[in-house]
Amino acid sequence: MTINRDISAEQRAREEDLVQRVLRSFDTCEDARLGEIMRSLVTHLHTFVREVRLTEAEWTEAIEFLTAVGHITDDKRQEFILLSDVLGASMQTITINNEAYGDATEATVFGPFFVEGSPRIDNGGDLSFGAEGRPCWVEGTVRDTDGKPVPGARIEVWEADDDGFYDVQYDDDRTAARAHLFTDEDGGYRFWAITPTPYPIPHDGPVGKMLQAVGRSPMRASHLHFMVTAPGARRLVTHIFVRGDELLHSDTVFGVKDSLVKDFVQRLAGTPTPDGRPVDRDWTRVKFDMVLAPEEAS
Amino acid sequence: MTINRDISAEQRAREEDLVQRVLRSFDTCEDARLGEIMRSLVTHLHTFVREVRLTEAEWTEAIEFLTAVGHITDDKRQEFILLSDVLGASMQTITINNEAYGDATEATVFGPFFVEGSPRIDNGGDLSFGAEGRPCWVEGTVRDTDGKPVPGARIEVWEADDDGFYDVQYDDDRTAARAHLFTDEDGGYRFWAITPTPYPIPHDGPVGKMLQAVGRSPMRASHLHFMVTAPGARRLVTHIFVRGDELLHSDTVFGVKDSLVKDFVQRLAGTPTPDGRPVDRDWTRVKFDMVLAPEEAS
Repeated sequence: MTINRDISAEQRAREEDLVQRVLRSFDTCEDARLGEIMRSLVTHLHTFVREVRLTEAEWTEAIEFLTAVGHITDDKRQEFILLSDVLGASMQTITINNEAYGDATEATVFGPFFVEGSPRIDNGGDLSFGAEGRPCWVEGTVRDTDGKPVPGARIEVWEADDDGFYDVQYDDDRTAARAHLFTDEDGGYRFWAITPTPYPIPHDGPVGKMLQAVGRSPMRASHLHFMVTAPGARRLVTHIFVRGDELLHSDTVFGVKDSLVKDFVQRLAGTPTPDGRPVDRDWTRVKFDMVLAPEEAS
Repeated sequence: MTINRDISAEQRAREEDLVQRVLRSFDTCEDARLGEIMRSLVTHLHTFVREVRLTEAEWTEAIEFLTAVGHITDDKRQEFILLSDVLGASMQTITINNEAYGDATEATVFGPFFVEGSPRIDNGGDLSFGAEGRPCWVEGTVRDTDGKPVPGARIEVWEADDDGFYDVQYDDDRTAARAHLFTDEDGGYRFWAITPTPYPIPHDGPVGKMLQAVGRSPMRASHLHFMVTAPGARRLVTHIFVRGDELLHSDTVFGVKDSLVKDFVQRLAGTPTPDGRPVDRDWTRVKFDMVLAPEEAS
């Protein structure tokens, strides 16, 4: 542990004795896992407080901040998740629970906008359902870590519209820019979506104020959400990002992985499309081949 | 950092890269102290998540716990302070901000029950104001770390009654078991109070549930609160505890320091009292000599 200033042996002993007393208070815990979590939490919480030499005024500010986070949180808004997101704790939890396995596709944050029961589309179908945005042709394959195609994998896709909103953020019960489809017998898939654009996380609350205080942007890099499930495979929750997006290095929830940044190739209006569909405006196309880890990899 | 299970070099690199990206996000922070705090917080938060290999279900439980803490908190109830207290973070903050200095009396937690504007009593007066409890004669001196008496030091004292409640916890606006007085020209003080008894912190909320889950008691060891101020001296906020109290080693907010445990000597009804006052029930007496650190010690 680094303590930035000199403290006397007596002072150090008092601080360390306190940590030990708190740790011992969990000796009675019968749930071994809970005890492990609490002891680790206490160790790191105290190290933090001691390392920065937290003042009483700062402690009070921390209590007031958490209180504000609690008070803005309701059925629709979850400011604690937002806090976990912008501190990278959500992404770290995802990283830990989706361990590197061969060339398996990397996971990223789930986000709050997935909805059960999305409409099914066929391969080659269109999931925009009227959502505004530049059309985007998405195609690729799903394979296992031995390179074998995975037919019948269920692919859920969801994204924000050109205004930066998901369908569920409107109050008219629309369903748009989300769907699911299944890979064909060769593990292939393809569909029309809309080209992702950047949007901010909700930033009118305490977490937004905190981002402002530290000079950080509330913007997420443009992305398209995927969730892929198949028997025997570890569930994959991920995004793809747009190469060239200037927000790639400042995504406010730290979801970007180099391996998930893809070329969204620009096409002018009138350029022939992969499925022959006429598109009278500029569009893009992207390829995303996914590799699923086996179920036991988690 | 201890990681309890083997992870691959690739997995370790992914986790560490994420931590670095989060740390770099604070490079834009213009407030150097805020940047220092955020970087330390992020470092220890991520170390915690990685060390325990937090599962997604556990992360969800943590979010739900914090949400419940936020929702029970209002103008009268501060569950985040309670949480900080039972994790020892409040006591650690106090310890850090009241550094060991010569033989200066140790500080302990402030607690939520201090009230500005307590009644003044004279030396030898009684601060119970009708609060139920066994009478207790408290006496001592206030000195500086050179051993010189501190005349005119202001001593605030407050405590719970025999039922474990402070006056402000009743809804009848009573003022009882609290007062302030001043040391005499020899730095001496003396007053009648009531003998402290143990009581639980509010434990019908999420923090109480957490204590129950880990097998900890919500009880505080019996104590009498002091706050002492004098020109040129560091403010002292402390308690004295009752030697022999079986809760001394399990005080739920970790406020007990060996140096603050005092002999509350038992006296039978009718034993002559120090000031000749007739007391027709059993009573106690305790001596508490305090030493104030100089102002610049903080």
